[in-house]
Amino acid sequence: MLTVYGDIRSGNCLKVKWMLDRVGRDYRWVEVDIMSGGSRTPEFLAMSPAGQVPIIVLEDGRPLAQSNAILLHLAESTDVIPADAYDRARMMEWLFWEQYSHEPYVAVARFQRLYLGKTEVEGRIMQRGDAALDRLEGALTGRDWIVGEGMTLADIALVAYTRMAGDGGFDLSTRTATRAWIRRVEAALALEPYG
Amino acid sequence: MLTVYGDIRSGNCLKVKWMLDRVGRDYRWVEVDIMSGGSRTPEFLAMSPAGQVPIIVLEDGRPLAQSNAILLHLAESTDVIPADAYDRARMMEWLFWEQYSHEPYVAVARFQRLYLGKTEVEGRIMQRGDAALDRLEGALTGRDWIVGEGMTLADIALVAYTRMAGDGGFDLSTRTATRAWIRRVEAALALEPYG
Repeated sequence: MLTVYGDIRSGNCLKVKWMLDRVGRDYRWVEVDIMSGGSRTPEFLAMSPAGQVPIIVLEDGRPLAQSNAILLHLAESTDVIPADAYDRARMMEWLFWEQYSHEPYVAVARFQRLYLGKTEVEGRIMQRGDAALDRLEGALTGRDWIVGEGMTLADIALVAYTRMAGDGGFDLSTRTATRAWIRRVEAALALEPYG
Repeated sequence: MLTVYGDIRSGNCLKVKWMLDRVGRDYRWVEVDIMSGGSRTPEFLAMSPAGQVPIIVLEDGRPLAQSNAILLHLAESTDVIPADAYDRARMMEWLFWEQYSHEPYVAVARFQRLYLGKTEVEGRIMQRGDAALDRLEGALTGRDWIVGEGMTLADIALVAYTRMAGDGGFDLSTRTATRAWIRRVEAALALEPYG
């Protein structure tokens, strides 16, 4: 059986859970306590040299890291990867953007408040997180999905931390296209609304 | 004809040039001076809302951003994308790792020294860049290529800033597997050795 090593509060890990549930694949979830060094043990680093969750270990024992690489692998040949080459390329663009320009700010602000208990997050992180959320709001205005006419991995990857942005001190109340899209993606993934 | 908007000194932009040259696709290169605001004009932001180079504009006028998404698009159905599903997933893992854990340190240190003229780079950036280069050295020890038995996009994406790491103040002299791999990838791409 496939095994996931993850932290159930982490958006990057939840993405993987949602995709496994969506494709109906059997899996075992092993909770890793990253705050008490669970992702720094020799056993864990042997599977995940970057020391990051989530990773999956396939039925034959081979590991795979990086949440968006895992999503792409699990979603191969399913309808959340566009058949059109340009739409597929745009989906990839958003997946890389999510990890480069959104997660390092929107998720990190949440991590600092929720995991580390900070009451103030560095201004640079909040500014860049707000810029990422603004860009997403612009992209979603007048659209139901980020790319094309249906839900893709871009929506699944980006909703993970966007729906939790309030935990990091970001304000979604004026971002109305984003809020409607969060509810749309949650409904498509059969999730309870967050927060 | 396809158009690239890029900065010829940027590893992220050079990746795209190398792939276009490799697949033999005609293109026009438009140099963008990011230091004088060339990536902040309304015209540029209309094509690249994230304000980043490189972008490509396809023959029909549609834009595509994010260097690794562009590589994947240009390389579709070529031998630098593994046919095996697991190898392909590992290649994707390295592409996301490159943008999350390597480029923000190895490239940013170089940017601060070369573009901004700084003589000292923040310790955190140097430490994380060294950690990324150490991980790469470990992965390359005893191997010719990062994934599988031939050059993939993981090699092309990671060599871009690794070969220039000295510009950022990193020391490649003791990283012998990495140095041999750099020469191997440069030869495969018909590049002059860097530095």
